[in-house]
Amino acid sequence: MTKNHMNKQWQSKTVFSVEGDYAGSDLVIFGAPFDSTTSFRPGARFGPEAVRSQSYGYEDFSPCQNKELPLELIHDAGDLELPLGDVRMTLEILESYADQLYIDGKIPLMLGGEHLLTLPIVKAAFKQYPDLMLVQFDAHADLRQDYLGVGLSHASVMRRIGDIRGDDRIVSYGVRSSTKEEFELLKAKQGRLFGKPEELLAGLDKSRPLYLTIDLDVLDPSVFPGTGTPEPGGMTYLELQDIILAITEKHRVVGVDLMELAPNYDPSGISTAAACKLLREISIALL
Amino acid sequence: MTKNHMNKQWQSKTVFSVEGDYAGSDLVIFGAPFDSTTSFRPGARFGPEAVRSQSYGYEDFSPCQNKELPLELIHDAGDLELPLGDVRMTLEILESYADQLYIDGKIPLMLGGEHLLTLPIVKAAFKQYPDLMLVQFDAHADLRQDYLGVGLSHASVMRRIGDIRGDDRIVSYGVRSSTKEEFELLKAKQGRLFGKPEELLAGLDKSRPLYLTIDLDVLDPSVFPGTGTPEPGGMTYLELQDIILAITEKHRVVGVDLMELAPNYDPSGISTAAACKLLREISIALL
Amino acid sequence: MTKNHMNKQWQSKTVFSVEGDYAGSDLVIFGAPFDSTTSFRPGARFGPEAVRSQSYGYEDFSPCQNKELPLELIHDAGDLELPLGDVRMTLEILESYADQLYIDGKIPLMLGGEHLLTLPIVKAAFKQYPDLMLVQFDAHADLRQDYLGVGLSHASVMRRIGDIRGDDRIVSYGVRSSTKEEFELLKAKQGRLFGKPEELLAGLDKSRPLYLTIDLDVLDPSVFPGTGTPEPGGMTYLELQDIILAITEKHRVVGVDLMELAPNYDPSGISTAAACKLLREISIALL
Amino acid sequence: MTKNHMNKQWQSKTVFSVEGDYAGSDLVIFGAPFDSTTSFRPGARFGPEAVRSQSYGYEDFSPCQNKELPLELIHDAGDLELPLGDVRMTLEILESYADQLYIDGKIPLMLGGEHLLTLPIVKAAFKQYPDLMLVQFDAHADLRQDYLGVGLSHASVMRRIGDIRGDDRIVSYGVRSSTKEEFELLKAKQGRLFGKPEELLAGLDKSRPLYLTIDLDVLDPSVFPGTGTPEPGGMTYLELQDIILAITEKHRVVGVDLMELAPNYDPSGISTAAACKLLREISIALL
Amino acid sequence: MTKNHMNKQWQSKTVFSVEGDYAGSDLVIFGAPFDSTTSFRPGARFGPEAVRSQSYGYEDFSPCQNKELPLELIHDAGDLELPLGDVRMTLEILESYADQLYIDGKIPLMLGGEHLLTLPIVKAAFKQYPDLMLVQFDAHADLRQDYLGVGLSHASVMRRIGDIRGDDRIVSYGVRSSTKEEFELLKAKQGRLFGKPEELLAGLDKSRPLYLTIDLDVLDPSVFPGTGTPEPGGMTYLELQDIILAITEKHRVVGVDLMELAPNYDPSGISTAAACKLLREISIALL
Amino acid sequence: MTKNHMNKQWQSKTVFSVEGDYAGSDLVIFGAPFDSTTSFRPGARFGPEAVRSQSYGYEDFSPCQNKELPLELIHDAGDLELPLGDVRMTLEILESYADQLYIDGKIPLMLGGEHLLTLPIVKAAFKQYPDLMLVQFDAHADLRQDYLGVGLSHASVMRRIGDIRGDDRIVSYGVRSSTKEEFELLKAKQGRLFGKPEELLAGLDKSRPLYLTIDLDVLDPSVFPGTGTPEPGGMTYLELQDIILAITEKHRVVGVDLMELAPNYDPSGISTAAACKLLREISIALL
Repeated sequence: MTKNHMNKQWQSKTVFSVEGDYAGSDLVIFGAPFDSTTSFRPGARFGPEAVRSQSYGYEDFSPCQNKELPLELIHDAGDLELPLGDVRMTLEILESYADQLYIDGKIPLMLGGEHLLTLPIVKAAFKQYPDLMLVQFDAHADLRQDYLGVGLSHASVMRRIGDIRGDDRIVSYGVRSSTKEEFELLKAKQGRLFGKPEELLAGLDKSRPLYLTIDLDVLDPSVFPGTGTPEPGGMTYLELQDIILAITEKHRVVGVDLMELAPNYDPSGISTAAACKLLREISIALL
Repeated sequence: MTKNHMNKQWQSKTVFSVEGDYAGSDLVIFGAPFDSTTSFRPGARFGPEAVRSQSYGYEDFSPCQNKELPLELIHDAGDLELPLGDVRMTLEILESYADQLYIDGKIPLMLGGEHLLTLPIVKAAFKQYPDLMLVQFDAHADLRQDYLGVGLSHASVMRRIGDIRGDDRIVSYGVRSSTKEEFELLKAKQGRLFGKPEELLAGLDKSRPLYLTIDLDVLDPSVFPGTGTPEPGGMTYLELQDIILAITEKHRVVGVDLMELAPNYDPSGISTAAACKLLREISIALL
Repeated sequence: MTKNHMNKQWQSKTVFSVEGDYAGSDLVIFGAPFDSTTSFRPGARFGPEAVRSQSYGYEDFSPCQNKELPLELIHDAGDLELPLGDVRMTLEILESYADQLYIDGKIPLMLGGEHLLTLPIVKAAFKQYPDLMLVQFDAHADLRQDYLGVGLSHASVMRRIGDIRGDDRIVSYGVRSSTKEEFELLKAKQGRLFGKPEELLAGLDKSRPLYLTIDLDVLDPSVFPGTGTPEPGGMTYLELQDIILAITEKHRVVGVDLMELAPNYDPSGISTAAACKLLREISIALL
Repeated sequence: MTKNHMNKQWQSKTVFSVEGDYAGSDLVIFGAPFDSTTSFRPGARFGPEAVRSQSYGYEDFSPCQNKELPLELIHDAGDLELPLGDVRMTLEILESYADQLYIDGKIPLMLGGEHLLTLPIVKAAFKQYPDLMLVQFDAHADLRQDYLGVGLSHASVMRRIGDIRGDDRIVSYGVRSSTKEEFELLKAKQGRLFGKPEELLAGLDKSRPLYLTIDLDVLDPSVFPGTGTPEPGGMTYLELQDIILAITEKHRVVGVDLMELAPNYDPSGISTAAACKLLREISIALL
Repeated sequence: MTKNHMNKQWQSKTVFSVEGDYAGSDLVIFGAPFDSTTSFRPGARFGPEAVRSQSYGYEDFSPCQNKELPLELIHDAGDLELPLGDVRMTLEILESYADQLYIDGKIPLMLGGEHLLTLPIVKAAFKQYPDLMLVQFDAHADLRQDYLGVGLSHASVMRRIGDIRGDDRIVSYGVRSSTKEEFELLKAKQGRLFGKPEELLAGLDKSRPLYLTIDLDVLDPSVFPGTGTPEPGGMTYLELQDIILAITEKHRVVGVDLMELAPNYDPSGISTAAACKLLREISIALL
Repeated sequence: MTKNHMNKQWQSKTVFSVEGDYAGSDLVIFGAPFDSTTSFRPGARFGPEAVRSQSYGYEDFSPCQNKELPLELIHDAGDLELPLGDVRMTLEILESYADQLYIDGKIPLMLGGEHLLTLPIVKAAFKQYPDLMLVQFDAHADLRQDYLGVGLSHASVMRRIGDIRGDDRIVSYGVRSSTKEEFELLKAKQGRLFGKPEELLAGLDKSRPLYLTIDLDVLDPSVFPGTGTPEPGGMTYLELQDIILAITEKHRVVGVDLMELAPNYDPSGISTAAACKLLREISIALL
């Protein structure tokens, strides 16, 4: 009897107690605890640990999809060890890790960490999927040329991604804060900024693989207070879940990230709860 | 002058400063500070004290019902002293206490405490009202056969209640989290799971007495973060208040409980505020 | 290079880093850190400092108005030094200060502090604008004759303002808590209580100058938990922003206050975020 | 059985579950939830409620005195209802209440609340005991002539008490913060400032009745973080307990207060724990 | 490179990143996340997770012992899965697990969890070491016959242990809170209560194996605020560390537990820091 | 009257309301809000703002030195704007700024920020004072060659400083945590590690100028919980104050920093209180 008790608990150290090994899993979840360029309030480094810990309190069954998480088909690779304060080394570690995942045919699902970390994963994804499109859910445009002279910043990540293959690869949704210059950039490309879910869905090409980068601050602060820069006037949880499941149902998604959970600003844990539940729904939908 | 100052404050030690004595009151409010089977995050034991303390900051007048709380017709019996860690003794104390309330012709209104504590009150209610129906407001199905081998658990309370007189006595509303097995049980009985308020109201038989068990986590975590297992995607405060007042207006309600407030996870006190206001509205509506 | 780094940061000590001097600014923002009559939970004294500090993390550009804050046209006068515990002296200091602002042709924008502090500013405004109308956004009626025998209380501020020139000068919006007597007062004057935005807008006379007093607890507690008495069932952030921008677009607004932010009850900072963003939108709209 | 469970819990609403009625008790404990003149960080109003609530978790037996609290000889009169923001009315209520206690031959033990509230109790005590001496335990001198022009301030309470019968009636202990002027005042009267326990004890006249006013911030912030103005470099808990018990053993103490617990700054509750334990030890020692 | 980064981080999921497997380790650390009988403030269930997470921030080298943790000789078995609310099943699981550890020749080191959980481990230890002595470090006597009628309670654990082989097997240190009856029991057996370190050390028989049960609330609340019932007037960290290292140096210690860390009451994490460092020092000292 | 009220409050935006302009001040205080290499728990970036804000609650008079802060002789230069995430640019900004201060004959007093920021200030100091000695107060050795491959890390700052002019320029005090390698380094140079105050004082050469770098985590966590890596077993506040004042009395101190206050881990504010008071005492002592 004792043995069983130990074993089950041990497994719960993975997110949602997933049990898949690397070889047998299509989806590989990993944490990226880094927030060194966060300019306002740090804490996204604590995101992955909070999701792992709190996911233990949530079911692995989704009533809305009427499916359970396939625990044996998902691998939780743990957290990458990233040198806080050294941005370039961190980006290299992440790109190299994502390269390997794509070579091995995995779908990477990164738990952030600050939004800058999306850059190296997308770089790796472009190598494997040259016609990749990005959908960005975000309260902020993240299109600054630089922030206080620093080009590799959370506030510039979508600008840097645009630098790789052109900014027509990015569709943004939910943006409600930007500088004037960023706003001009967003408006210049009609195809990139959407306000209504059906418009977003209509504008996506089903023949191309998608990468979903979800800055969780796209949610309203009432739903998701635990983030560095909460921005009033955002989406409800169900609005975000619905649009994402609508995308995953009709498109081939080859990478996902859930970024900017900073649980230290939310003693109630509702932000981590939203991240956990979204992770469950996306993971079920992808497999 | 001094005497008055002392007296008023002393009375405020009761919830909403109600002044009724036991004999002269139809409604008896009591606290049940117990959360020993809470599996994830404890703290529901602190619920009753928080409601008593914070109710002092709220009016006893309801604008939406245009009525004041009848302070002399409500008795606050204080908190039961429950032996934390001893589930069976706790359930016995509660059942025995509720038996007495029903024999004395009172409407019990319990402030939880964890949801398992609904079981003994409903047991007592069934003795007095054999045709009793239950309406469960809850984010979770609470229909597990057992939790880690324990049958008397917060996660099993509706299953245990179903064991008494059959599970067709229970109408559930707001459930958005369950295991696959619980979900099958909910679906099997069409009459038990409702999504829209009007469907819930239409399905209730006005000739039968009702017991309302309200697991406050049916509310969205943004509105009610202070609970053990916040579940994204729930009701707003007004949606819950409206449907409950619609029920109390047309049905005979013979018992109510407000469960799973864990104020320790909500430093802002908005969860306790929601519980206080709902308590006020229900109390006015019942009298 | 160093010098620039020092200078920019130094400026950020003002709210949103505004740079206007007194003489050259039409809008003068000042803090009023006082909450001595707060009966339930103090902390509104910390509101101005929180807004100044947290505004640093927010853009000075408004996407919805497609305009930037005109930083050189707004003066941040800092906080008034108010003697906590001495209500009369505090009200005198504020009235005298507001008198000077109106004499100098400024629009005062006060960051509270408790709601009682609106009284002296409105007194000063009446001197300059005898046909002034007030729009009150508030969860509470604030119409008590007195609170525990004290007439100068946050719970009586609109009653005291009504005493000056009659209570038909006040239009209230969002009130959802009151005593029975206050409720009668509100109902007696049909013109004073509004439930729908269009009704509020239709009822305002465009020929008369307006003062907007915004008790931020008019927002729902999920959006604005950081206040002394959170009252469930309120407005969303966008509902409040929309109605205020609709007013500023068509009316001459000669004074504004944002009251009752008590950031100590909101460790996530989302309440301060809402106050900051509303301050930005209003400031842009007024200039 | 049920009845017993209700009764015991009900009693625990008093501090340490004391059971004495007014007539039969020598010691009367009452709360004074008022902090309107607190200039820095409010919250002392929450002190009495915290002590009542948390005392439930502590034994009523003192190992160091080898005695139990005589529960039937102590009356908990609850909290006075004090009009926050109105200092004069508050002081009148307190003086009038204390007058009655002294007329009835009681020893008042006040749970604060801010330190200014000591003034009216001492005024009442002087009427009954004209040769009364005060011992002040405090981190701050509290000897300012006024604070921002306000003479009735927590920062001036000992100066105001000195105004009644002369400042040679006050012996101060533990003071480690003052203005230069206050420091001169303290030094001028050799008899008033003590650094070592034995000096304090040696300097007290055993023939005169004593009032002990204990501003709990005399304790080191590590031991008592929950106060408005924590002042590094203070006493340990045992140092304070020892010196107080040494005084109560040899002197006639006719009044005590425990002031400036602001539990909202101490989520761990250790400050309230210190206040509870000190309250227990003093109460046992006085009876 | 990437691989290394993953591997190291993965290991850090164990406490102090220990790497030993079960077979090759003499010391087996396991968590016991259970606090259902905690009567006052729950949260000790969160102790083991906090120690694992926070130990990552501390060195594995001890300057005072000039030794590193032998990472390969310590096995972290994870947490036992314990059914909250079911005390008897929990005690059975623990005793059965500890039996196996003793049969396999391991030294168990339990991270609590509430103090009642010491009972089953000591039961198992008595089977293997019939002449076992216990040293209890504790602020509370834990000698109640029962608590609210419940005999298996955290407040009775030393009484229950005494029931097994007699209470002369227990030496208590640091006790500063008890009922009168418990105090009599402690005094009756001179050999059991010690006040000075050298007396404790002198009274221990070097020929007999020792079990150290450390209720961390023996520490002063300033050092260890994160516990259910902080008790003012306790030991400093170094006093506790010194006496424990003095014992481990001269005695054969065959079991240790570190109980009653409730990190939810200590947002600063200093309590978990103390537990981590003590765990490191003891682990080094035992091997 | 009003004007005075504005002016005084405005000045309080500087630390302790100091009023000196740059030209007329010998001591220049500046904040360095940067913590990007913090490996465990970030938040030192919030240190300078917390000290400025909380210093308002503390006297500018020191009873132990019997002197007031000379407000007109101290300049608060505000915070440097540092690009979080870009370590090299940050170090350049700081060194350039400190160069200017030394050229202008000022004593720099830096409020951190993480400890790495001491490096550029000391570099600048060495240029002006080639025979400079450092005294390091610190819980941690900070002598690592690198941390996760990064040489410019808070964990390596004293090693990097040693690289400039040799590690015999550094005297360390209070270190109680290190790796084995760091411990060997500390032991190798007898002159560098001191345990007793008098030994430290005896070992300092009065003919050479001193720079004091104070990592505030040298204090015990009970006194200073608000820091990234609290380390049990440290100094009391008075022990630290006494030894520093002993140094300033006899030595020429040409630079000071107070590092690693992370107020976000200390809701009580006692850590910031300790930093404020130490800042006051040092500032008085230096002038």
